[in-house]
Amino acid sequence: MPDHTRPPDKRVTIYDVALEAAVSPSTVSRAFSRPSRVNSETAERIRQVAERLGYRTNPLARALTTARTHMIALVIADITNPVYAEIVRGAQEAAIGDEYTTVLIDAQESDQVERAAIERTMSTVDGIVLASSRMSDSAIRMFAKQRPVVVLNRAIADVPCVVTDNPRGARRAAEHLGELGHDHITYVAGPEASWPNGIRWRSLLEAGMELEIKVRQIGPFSPTIEGGERAAEELCARPATAVLAFNDQMAIGLIRGLTRKGVNVPGDVSIVGFDNILAADIVTPGLTTVAAPFYAAGSAAARHLLTMIEGAPGHTGRPMVLPVRLVVRQSTAPRNLSPGRSRPPWVRQRPATQPAAHLS
Amino acid sequence: MPDHTRPPDKRVTIYDVALEAAVSPSTVSRAFSRPSRVNSETAERIRQVAERLGYRTNPLARALTTARTHMIALVIADITNPVYAEIVRGAQEAAIGDEYTTVLIDAQESDQVERAAIERTMSTVDGIVLASSRMSDSAIRMFAKQRPVVVLNRAIADVPCVVTDNPRGARRAAEHLGELGHDHITYVAGPEASWPNGIRWRSLLEAGMELEIKVRQIGPFSPTIEGGERAAEELCARPATAVLAFNDQMAIGLIRGLTRKGVNVPGDVSIVGFDNILAADIVTPGLTTVAAPFYAAGSAAARHLLTMIEGAPGHTGRPMVLPVRLVVRQSTAPRNLSPGRSRPPWVRQRPATQPAAHLS
Repeated sequence: MPDHTRPPDKRVTIYDVALEAAVSPSTVSRAFSRPSRVNSETAERIRQVAERLGYRTNPLARALTTARTHMIALVIADITNPVYAEIVRGAQEAAIGDEYTTVLIDAQESDQVERAAIERTMSTVDGIVLASSRMSDSAIRMFAKQRPVVVLNRAIADVPCVVTDNPRGARRAAEHLGELGHDHITYVAGPEASWPNGIRWRSLLEAGMELEIKVRQIGPFSPTIEGGERAAEELCARPATAVLAFNDQMAIGLIRGLTRKGVNVPGDVSIVGFDNILAADIVTPGLTTVAAPFYAAGSAAARHLLTMIEGAPGHTGRPMVLPVRLVVRQSTAPRNLSPGRSRPPWVRQRPATQPAAHLS
Repeated sequence: MPDHTRPPDKRVTIYDVALEAAVSPSTVSRAFSRPSRVNSETAERIRQVAERLGYRTNPLARALTTARTHMIALVIADITNPVYAEIVRGAQEAAIGDEYTTVLIDAQESDQVERAAIERTMSTVDGIVLASSRMSDSAIRMFAKQRPVVVLNRAIADVPCVVTDNPRGARRAAEHLGELGHDHITYVAGPEASWPNGIRWRSLLEAGMELEIKVRQIGPFSPTIEGGERAAEELCARPATAVLAFNDQMAIGLIRGLTRKGVNVPGDVSIVGFDNILAADIVTPGLTTVAAPFYAAGSAAARHLLTMIEGAPGHTGRPMVLPVRLVVRQSTAPRNLSPGRSRPPWVRQRPATQPAAHLS
């Protein structure tokens, strides 16, 4: 008998059943997919609750039950970016706990490579986590109709998503630079096909408006140290005192490229990155950056995928958002306004007759 | 008709056919596996040469022809070590050129994880590259009987192997440190299951004997920055003026751990790593290290695997050895013998009455 206290248009989820039966969602999914792994009394209680609430298991996953391979695919955008190693380790930890093997696909920042690899591997895996997919929304939805899919580092309607709090990260970076006296921030853009790239730029724009900090964008550049080094050259032609880079690799390339040209970081220009990769703590000066829990993100995405594979419908409402924090190191400093100092070309660009205007 | 100039016990290889027909080995393999992709006259000539020489294609690969998935697996020991990203990119470049998709498996430095993942994926791939496998020789040979296998960063009889010149690398590191006046080298060991770890230590031992440099070993430690930081603590208890670390990540951890304890690198202790990862150029002081062509190694291993998949027998003689070179940066310096200098604990260990003994 359906529960009539529930609005008729709201689908009953595995979470509702879990709450009502006082067990975890994964126990609910096991009660349906592998009842032998659940205490028989508990399984019976779960089945009764599910029937009473009118719970329907995921038909796509149910159809797969007999043909399980116990492999999941984790597609990453770029294996040379250490962020993905953390995501991989998090996902593997979750998968191994459920006796699943994770096969990895490196999309090499190419939607074509990504798509071809998924088409080839899809039939051999029970589900797919797409981390920083470069494919179109429609391509992702097409795959999600054929296999359980969880998207990571990207929000897309109708597909379960896990993201980190990019708007908050860009905002914290802008606040930090504003507090140091910077009234302009240059955003050094990463790949155009990257969803976080767009959201970081828009969030910086928004924060700039609120905080009365001017923002501009240069790029796109490759999201690598080499990309950051190329951005450093462009930055020399279009000077800045504060830079937010799409990611840490680019920020490290900026530090290297600028330092080689005699520009002092942070004396002449402050630099902030995104991700808090290990190298952010190794480079000199240490990189101020927005840290995100990528291990936890990989783990959360894989756990949600496994629940879907075991029969739960995917959670396709708002994305799961993981918190970020700003890690302040030595690459950011108060904007240098001392008049006696020898200055790099871009600081000379300021009108010499209005040095005090920047103190307001 | 067989060629009677050839000793009867020597098996005819794809290279013999290629030489005789004046084509590349991959053209020979295609002539058998995908004749439509070879000019028909050339294919006919190759078949005649093959028949005359008594060439037999690889029966394992031939049996697979009808069931090709056009996927290969590349198993790496540790996705958090950037060395593997280069290997992956090299292998992928070779595989994509032949329209193969590469799926990756991260063994997480565990022979059990590695073995379980291979058992699960093996039936879905046409062949496997094992990079820095932590499995036993017998486990590797067992897999090599079921699928074409190429081993990377390890030498093992009866299986095709690609290695970098570790003995030469350890020797160059010892020569460099010897030239700087160091008469003791401490080797900071990596995982015991790592084949390069064993060969690097044995090669250093040998070089030490020839060059009259004393060597000792501490460890094993985890082949990570954290592992190097732990090694730094042990090194404080057992001082050294020159260190060769199993890999760059450990060497960077050593630099960080020692610097935090007030030990000057390279003033008090010189440090050399292995691999020349990008971070070796980012850390301060820049890390002197043995560079190896990992991209080329990944590419060579995958190309050889694809030739085997397309019918060539694996080249199981001596491993293919790729050259290394020493990249000298700022982490190595002449041994500090100046008597007036304030010294860290380990230099104080030297008998104060015999300061000149170390000059011999």
